[in-house]
Amino acid sequence: MDDEIIDFISKIIPLTEDQISFIRSQNQFETYKKGTVLLSEGEFCKLNFFILKGCIRSYYIVEGEERTTEFYTERQSIIPISLVKNQPSEYYLSCLEDCVVAVSTAETSQKLIERVPKLESLIIQMHSQLLIEHQVSLDDFKNLNPEMRYKKLLERRPDLLQRVSLFHLASYLGITPESLSRIRKRITLK
Amino acid sequence: MDDEIIDFISKIIPLTEDQISFIRSQNQFETYKKGTVLLSEGEFCKLNFFILKGCIRSYYIVEGEERTTEFYTERQSIIPISLVKNQPSEYYLSCLEDCVVAVSTAETSQKLIERVPKLESLIIQMHSQLLIEHQVSLDDFKNLNPEMRYKKLLERRPDLLQRVSLFHLASYLGITPESLSRIRKRITLK
Repeated sequence: MDDEIIDFISKIIPLTEDQISFIRSQNQFETYKKGTVLLSEGEFCKLNFFILKGCIRSYYIVEGEERTTEFYTERQSIIPISLVKNQPSEYYLSCLEDCVVAVSTAETSQKLIERVPKLESLIIQMHSQLLIEHQVSLDDFKNLNPEMRYKKLLERRPDLLQRVSLFHLASYLGITPESLSRIRKRITLK
Repeated sequence: MDDEIIDFISKIIPLTEDQISFIRSQNQFETYKKGTVLLSEGEFCKLNFFILKGCIRSYYIVEGEERTTEFYTERQSIIPISLVKNQPSEYYLSCLEDCVVAVSTAETSQKLIERVPKLESLIIQMHSQLLIEHQVSLDDFKNLNPEMRYKKLLERRPDLLQRVSLFHLASYLGITPESLSRIRKRITLK
C-alpha cells in the first residue's frame, strides 16, 4: 500500500530515493474492518486520514437518527473539524467497507514537510480541490431539488451508487429512502 | 491597506524587510463600489480574492430567482470554482458594500511563494479553516431546521445581521423573508 501513496505523490512532485524511503518510514498505514467507528461524537481527534482503499462515512446523530453528511473514498482526505478546532467531535466517522488508510498527526505531517518541502504545494492543491467539492456540495444542496441532486451525484460520483446502500444515500441527499426509490424509478422510466 | 495585509501575514509568519517590500510590490489592491459584480455566470475567473474591507455575496440565479450561497467578509478568501476547475462560473460574486480586496492570479501567487516560501504554510492554515467553515455550513444546512440555522448563524457571524439585508439572509438560510421575520419575532419574544 505504501507504493500507492508514493505513486500518488510522485505523479505530482518529483521525489528522490531518499525522500521515498523517508515517506515510507513515516507513513502509518492502518487497516480497518468494515463497520469500524474511527471517531465518535464527543471524542477528540488527533489524526488526519488519507484513504487508499475503501469508503468512510461521516454522520451526525440528530434526535436519535443518523444523518449522513459525506462519503469519503480512494485518494480523498478527511480533515476532522475536531482536529482543526481542537474540540470534541460533533459527528461520527465509520467504515462502510474494509479500509486501508494513511493516518498522520500534526507532528508526522510537519516532519514530512520538513523533509519534502514540495509536499506543501501538493497539500495546497488537494485542499483547493476539497474546498471546491465542499462548495459544490453545499451549493447543490441549497439550489437543487432532490431529483436534481441525485442526478448530479450520479454524474459526479457514479461509484457511490454501487458501494453505498440506498438508506445511506437517501440520508445524504436529505430525503427518505422511499422518496429516493421513487426518484430512481422515475429516472429509469424516462 | 497594504499595511493591513502585512500585519495579517506577519502575525503568523515572520517577514524580513525585503519580503515586506516584495509583498507590497506584488499585491494588487482593488477598490470596488457597492453593487459591483466581480464575476457573472458563464465567465471565466482568473483571480483569487482576499477581502480587506467589505462584504461580497455569492449567488446563483435559479429559475429567475437569486439564491444566495455565501457572504465573504474581512480576512476571508474567495477561491472561485471557475478558477480551480478552469470552467465558466455557475454563480455570481457581487459587492454588498464598498470593498477593498487584494487580488492575485496563479502567477503572482507563485512569485510570492517563491520569495516568501513560508506563505505556503499560511495558505494551508487558511485553507484548513475555510474547509472547516464550509463543512460546518453544509452539515448545519442538512441537520438543522431553519430556526436552529438562524440561531447558529447569530452565534458564528453576528456581524452579518448588521450588514446584510433580511432578504439576502433569508435566501442564504434557504427560507422566505416572511419565515425569517417570523423566526426573529419568535426569538425576540422568548
